[in-house]
Order: sequence, then C-alpha cells, then structure tokens
Amino acid sequence: MSSLKERLLARVTNDLEAIEAALQDNLTPYLDLVSKTARHILFSGGKRLRPLLMVISARVCNYSGKNDKQFAVIFEYLHAATLLHDDLIDGAPVRRGKPVAHSIFGNSTAVLVGDFLLARALSIAAIAENARIIDTIAKVTEDMSQGEIQQMMNKGRMDITEKEYMQVIENKTAGLIKAACRIGALIADAPDKDIERLSAYGYYVGIAFQMTDDLLDYLADTWDLGKEVGADLKEGKLTLPVIYALKQADTAERNRMIEIISESDFSVADFQLLVDLLQSYGGLSYTRDRADEYVRMAKEELAGFEPSEALETLEMIADYALLRKI
Amino acid sequence: MSSLKERLLARVTNDLEAIEAALQDNLTPYLDLVSKTARHILFSGGKRLRPLLMVISARVCNYSGKNDKQFAVIFEYLHAATLLHDDLIDGAPVRRGKPVAHSIFGNSTAVLVGDFLLARALSIAAIAENARIIDTIAKVTEDMSQGEIQQMMNKGRMDITEKEYMQVIENKTAGLIKAACRIGALIADAPDKDIERLSAYGYYVGIAFQMTDDLLDYLADTWDLGKEVGADLKEGKLTLPVIYALKQADTAERNRMIEIISESDFSVADFQLLVDLLQSYGGLSYTRDRADEYVRMAKEELAGFEPSEALETLEMIADYALLRKI
Repeated sequence: MSSLKERLLARVTNDLEAIEAALQDNLTPYLDLVSKTARHILFSGGKRLRPLLMVISARVCNYSGKNDKQFAVIFEYLHAATLLHDDLIDGAPVRRGKPVAHSIFGNSTAVLVGDFLLARALSIAAIAENARIIDTIAKVTEDMSQGEIQQMMNKGRMDITEKEYMQVIENKTAGLIKAACRIGALIADAPDKDIERLSAYGYYVGIAFQMTDDLLDYLADTWDLGKEVGADLKEGKLTLPVIYALKQADTAERNRMIEIISESDFSVADFQLLVDLLQSYGGLSYTRDRADEYVRMAKEELAGFEPSEALETLEMIADYALLRKI
Repeated sequence: MSSLKERLLARVTNDLEAIEAALQDNLTPYLDLVSKTARHILFSGGKRLRPLLMVISARVCNYSGKNDKQFAVIFEYLHAATLLHDDLIDGAPVRRGKPVAHSIFGNSTAVLVGDFLLARALSIAAIAENARIIDTIAKVTEDMSQGEIQQMMNKGRMDITEKEYMQVIENKTAGLIKAACRIGALIADAPDKDIERLSAYGYYVGIAFQMTDDLLDYLADTWDLGKEVGADLKEGKLTLPVIYALKQADTAERNRMIEIISESDFSVADFQLLVDLLQSYGGLSYTRDRADEYVRMAKEELAGFEPSEALETLEMIADYALLRKI
C-alpha cells in the first residue's frame, strides 16, 4: 500500500510538470540577477501547493481553458515574494535546507526581487481582465503584508492569544491558499456558491497547513523539514503549541517555559524540556486536534460538488495538510 | 511678479488639500505601526507631483466624477513604497532633510510597510474595475522594480552609457509619472488619442524631473534640497552629468574624475574639482539641455487639447520640472 503522499504525487505529476514549465517561462525574459534570485527561491524544493490547488479547483469546476497553469504561477510568485522578504526580516539562515536568498545575493537584491515577483504576479493577474480576480489578488497581497507586520509586532511577546495567532496565520498563510482555490473557481466561471465553497475549503486547508507547520517546529524527529527545529522560537515567534501550553501551565512551569523561550540561544536540553512541557500541557495535541478539525471542515465544503477525480485530489490534499511530515 | 512656483501653487491649492485628505483617509483603519511609518514617509514634504498630475490630467479630459482624489492616492502610495525600499538599499541617511524611515522604525518595518503601501495602492486601483487601469498599474509596478534592480546592478560601474541611464530613469521615475497622467485620462473616459498624448506628456515630464534632480545633486548652492549634495555619487550612482563628462574628457581628466568618484568619502575640495570638470566638459549644460528638450516635447503633446485652465496648469508643471530649484 503506497503512502498518501505517493498516491497524491502520482495523480498530480502532469500538473506539477506543467506548473514548473510555466514558472520557468514567466521568468525567462528578465534581468539575469532577477532570474537567478527568483530561481533560487522558486526552484528550491517548494511543493507548489498553491498553484496546484488553483489548477485542481478550476478542474473541479469543469474549467476547459488553457490558461490555468499561467494563472497558477501568480500564487507561487506571491508566495516566493513574501518568503524573500520574510527570510530577510526573520534572519533565518536556511530555508528548505538551503542558504536563504539574501545570504547569497544580498539584502538589497532580496528586497527588490521580492518587489519584482509581487509586481510580476499582478501583471499576470491583470491579463484576466476580470475584476473579481484582480480584487482577490489585491486584497490578499494587502492581507499578507498586514499579517507579516502583525507577526513582527508580536515578536517576543509572551502574552499572544490564540485569537491573535489566528489573525496572523489567516492573513499570512490561509488567505493566499484561499485565494488560489477561489481564483481556480473564478477562471472556471463557476456559480457563486461553488466559488464560496472552494474559497472556504482553501481557507481551512491553509489554516491546517500552517498549524501543522507550527507543530513540526517542535517535533524533534523532523530534521528533514529543511529548517532548524525550534526555529520559530529562536525568532521570538510564539505559535499555537506554546500559546496553548502557556495558558494551561501552572505559574512555576509557565515561568520556566518563558525563561527558555526568552533565551534565544537555548540549549538542546532546555528545548527538550520545553517540548516535554508542551506535551504535558496539551499544546501539541491541542494544535493537532485543531488542525484535524480544519481539515474536516475543508472536506465538508467539498460535499456539495459532483464526485470527480479532481474532487478526490482536493480531499487528499486536505488530508495531506495534516499528515505530510508527521 | 510672483514666481512660477507661487503661481502654480496658487492654482492647485484646493487640489493639494483634497489629495492630503485622501492620503490621510486611506491610512486610518490600519495598524498603528503601519500608519506611523507610512505617515513618516508620506507626510514629510513630498510635492504630491504624481497625484496632482493625475487629477489635472483627468480635468483636462473633462472628468466630472468624484473619485479622482481617491485614485490619485495610488500614485503617492506607490511612490512612497519605492522610497521606503530604495532608502534602505541606498543606505541614504536623510530624505527631504529628515532621517529616513528605516533609521527610525527599523529595516523590517521599512520593508513590510513598503509592501503594504504597494498592496494598498493595488487594492484602490482594483476598485476601478477597469482593465486598462489595472494593467497600467501592474505594468508600472513591474517596471519600477526592474528599474531599481538595474540601478543597483549599475552601482559602482564607471562605464554606464547614456542609454543605460535612460533605461533606469524611464523605469524608475518616468513610468510612474506617465501612468499618473494616463490614468487621469482613463478615469475621464478620454478618447485614445488623448490618453496617448497625456501618457507621452507624463513620460517627458518624468524624464525632465529626474534629469533636473540628477543635475541638482552637483549644484553646490542647493542645500535646501533636503539631501546631501553629491549623494548620488556617494551611493555609487553615475547620472547623466557625470556620464556625459566622462565621455568627453581626455584620458588624464577622465582618470582624475574616476578617482574622485571611486572614493566614496571624497573631500569637499575633490567634489568641487569634479563639479568644475563636469562644468568644463559640458556635463551640466548637456543635462540641462536634454531636460529642456523633454519639457518642450511634453508641452508639444498638450497642443492637441482645447485651451483650459487645467491645460495651462499642466504647462506650468512641465516648466516647473526644469526650474524648480535652479
């Protein structure tokens, strides 16, 4: 019996290849430094989740045109633009196991190529000449920058609430995945109710993905994640596992956790102690349960569609959100 | 006899006030740090040239709606977004006589608020639901980021050609001013020939403004410019006065100039010697003549319109491009 990941990959291989080709094509005529920097961030092991979700969402709505891969590029470009700027701001040394772009090409290049990718995404979106598509892209770009700013302002704060955490991941992550699914439905000229269902599906999947990602930061056996375990904590980012555990802990253990968290250069032993406390106060299982719940809600949104291979793929992607590395 | 500047200001006072109000309104509901940083860059003595040109261009085309000030905001936001990122990249200490935003709010905030202003500009543009407006904005945003990247790649190069210089200022400066005039015509539903004329007018005015700005960097009596004289040179940016003089100079004096230029911490005496060489090899007069020529071409584009007060204002702005600080 092959794994979910293998089965999912098998059914989307052709789409992924077409998306790769479109990503390459749309960079070809640009300045060498732009292409090099953009390629570094674009072709370093991203999963193409966002463009894939757009393409499959369009297919669920019986899209029969030829522009889906072209539009799908928008979401990978927007995603890459935010990664370039975020890595700079977070001071993270690696992404997906490779040195971050600004450490190779310089901070200025990272800022400007991020701007370029954002602008390029909008130029591609403009081709659609569809006000709802433009509006969705403009709004999500605005929300993402707001999410980043909220996250930056939250850095180092020990009193972040679950609500504040949700605001950040909605703006930063779920919004773009929601937009990808929404625009898949929009280019297929789907009826409004289907547009809203796929938007909601994307939103829930996006939340589940981010929660799982935040959980993985505390799971010591995930060295293959391509980033350091505990990286969020080192950057002063409190995510749901910690937020929940801090709320549940008694004063002494809460103070012990805060002490470890506040120390940006914590030892392996301290980190292990923290993970044990997250475990015993339910921070890990609570986060997993919440992510589970969002995957369930995502799949519920799919219930209104006719069964199809594409619909099954969306269901599998929702499940994958949860399982991918755990 | 009052000066051109006074006469121009007298006729645009009401428009400038309405533009100020719209700039404020569009920032009100956002995060405190965003508003503060955006306000620092937006309300520190900008001339509002771009929004003003949009509003007056619309008026020349008999615009009778109420949304001109709202759309005009787009151009000041886009401009401010690039200033935030450019100042960071250039490492300039002051802009318009005030400390640059990133020195007050930090580099991360400057990057993210720049992203936010860019996204906000697009969200406002999306309201128009007009494919040509969206397309113009998307394209100009892309061009500006390309211009910035070209400029960064040119830094420190002594063999920049006039053609390369023109490419940078077209993308970086003239494109946005052109877009402002173009969108003024577009929101007024002007006929295509008027849209093209005003676009060309904006392009020529933009080139003239940038050339004048580059010239001012070498004119020692312009301390009121709000930036250091010789700032471009300190950042390794070769502009037209230098590019031209280097081409005209004999080998010995070219080498002397290159020596001064390559020294980022040149003395006042060295800078004065350089300005003398720019003068004697015609770099200053050549740049002034080129700017003059672009102003003439800008005004020629206006010849096809019916005479009106708004049209006169556009003529005055073209003249002002040349005269403003010299």
